[in-house]
Amino acid sequence: MQRRAFWARLNPGCQDEYIEAHRNMPRELGMLYRKAGIQDLHIYQHGELLFLYLECEDVDAVMASLENSSMEREWQKLISPMLDGGDSRALTAIFQLP
Amino acid sequence: MQRRAFWARLNPGCQDEYIEAHRNMPRELGMLYRKAGIQDLHIYQHGELLFLYLECEDVDAVMASLENSSMEREWQKLISPMLDGGDSRALTAIFQLP
Repeated sequence: MQRRAFWARLNPGCQDEYIEAHRNMPRELGMLYRKAGIQDLHIYQHGELLFLYLECEDVDAVMASLENSSMEREWQKLISPMLDGGDSRALTAIFQLP
Repeated sequence: MQRRAFWARLNPGCQDEYIEAHRNMPRELGMLYRKAGIQDLHIYQHGELLFLYLECEDVDAVMASLENSSMEREWQKLISPMLDGGDSRALTAIFQLP
């Protein structure tokens, strides 16, 4: 299993909107993510700081699968304007409990 | 299973030292964490930003178990000065893929 973590900063005032959007994420989009190979996806927040934690078998396959999805494009069009820089950024794994 | 996420900011210049400390974390401390009930612990980093992701059965039991450990106290004495504010802060879970 592959694990990936990302972070993002919410633009000022977008906190409630971001949480609300995810509360109302279309059921079909969740199903699309699962079908693309995402096994687990958690988002954590503190103020304007966001952390996304993802588990999947093959992250490249997930990205390739989602790339051509209009549903995913619509979702990104909704979410991107809430994020500083428009997207989340990958974190580097530096420790795993042996 | 319980999942918890924390974040911290490294003090300026402490990045290499923090990574190196975790690379050399005493084997016995890892065993102590497992014995305390931690099933998975991952740390991710980007610049001075740290993201800690934890899986366990019962986070209160883990904390109670570690509270009286001199080994854990020694570890915190080493790590705390590297962190802005001396400790990591809990994040709020705002989304989980259904």
